[in-house]
Amino acid sequence: MKLLEERIRQDGIVIGDDILKVDRFLNHQMDPALFQAMAEEWKRQFAGDHVNKILTIEASGIGIACIVGLVFGCPVVFAKKSKTRNTPEECYMATVRSFTRGIISDVTVSKKYLGPSDRVLIIDDFMATGEAANGLISLVKEAGAHLCGVGIAIEKAFQQGGNALREEGIKVVSLARIGTMSESEGISFLD
Amino acid sequence: MKLLEERIRQDGIVIGDDILKVDRFLNHQMDPALFQAMAEEWKRQFAGDHVNKILTIEASGIGIACIVGLVFGCPVVFAKKSKTRNTPEECYMATVRSFTRGIISDVTVSKKYLGPSDRVLIIDDFMATGEAANGLISLVKEAGAHLCGVGIAIEKAFQQGGNALREEGIKVVSLARIGTMSESEGISFLD
Repeated sequence: MKLLEERIRQDGIVIGDDILKVDRFLNHQMDPALFQAMAEEWKRQFAGDHVNKILTIEASGIGIACIVGLVFGCPVVFAKKSKTRNTPEECYMATVRSFTRGIISDVTVSKKYLGPSDRVLIIDDFMATGEAANGLISLVKEAGAHLCGVGIAIEKAFQQGGNALREEGIKVVSLARIGTMSESEGISFLD
Repeated sequence: MKLLEERIRQDGIVIGDDILKVDRFLNHQMDPALFQAMAEEWKRQFAGDHVNKILTIEASGIGIACIVGLVFGCPVVFAKKSKTRNTPEECYMATVRSFTRGIISDVTVSKKYLGPSDRVLIIDDFMATGEAANGLISLVKEAGAHLCGVGIAIEKAFQQGGNALREEGIKVVSLARIGTMSESEGISFLD
């Protein structure tokens, strides 16, 4: 998606060979108009898949997912990284390692909000090794829901998360796929 | 706002005298169409305030705030509860106690995304004692930004956070104000 690629070139900052900071528009400050354009593109690519629920993971996926839900006309559920005092009910649970934080979290979704009648589109801001997506996919499977696919804003395609899912037959639509990046050479995108 | 009050009556669950679970539509599963209607109401109430930035706090404020940003046509910033490996830059910081979690967090906003040219509308899902709003207000002051006001989805008006801010002259627009609630008697709203 050219609009997102141009925005990454304009406002993204590469640190070393594996960190891309996009906190000017994606995951600290957020540009809702860009998110709407991204949501329209996913809507086009998942037309016919009868998506009726968006699933994401806190925190930085929530903003994108909520606008995707608005465009698809369906509810959004975010997997929580810890349980609060006022959510004691039964949950599905998966374990996720965060690439950026380097920590392992249990993520949970209430059984009330994911089930066999759901046709799920997973949305997240980044995919690298695919740990978050794999955790969310395991929640979808545990719930007996149908997985329509995975929508990622920025895929670090030089890491293997996206292709591993595609090899399993999962439809992964990444709006910007980074082939190479470095501080000195900048970013190249894959088609 | 009648639409939100009706939804709370329909889908909210009161536990004891001080916990209201609205995770069916507000802060675990989220209804983006409802958020859009809420955003339109805040847009009406803050017309003329020239809001050019939305500020919220992770995690459950992000979805509402992002749709508010879409309706206001401006960027959204969320205060982060912990620092990730890839955000080492200078930040504004405040300390916030979570009513629901019972824990104290440092919340941060990058100095790049909040400054004197910003006219800020703070958005959050709940207000009880006002700890989160006070933390965000202190970030706005520290940044030298202008505070247009605070938009809250559900104010527990039997607690003192909202009125304390109003007594300081801050414009607080809560879309549903709970006067009383209990498991046996249900919920009453203030006008």
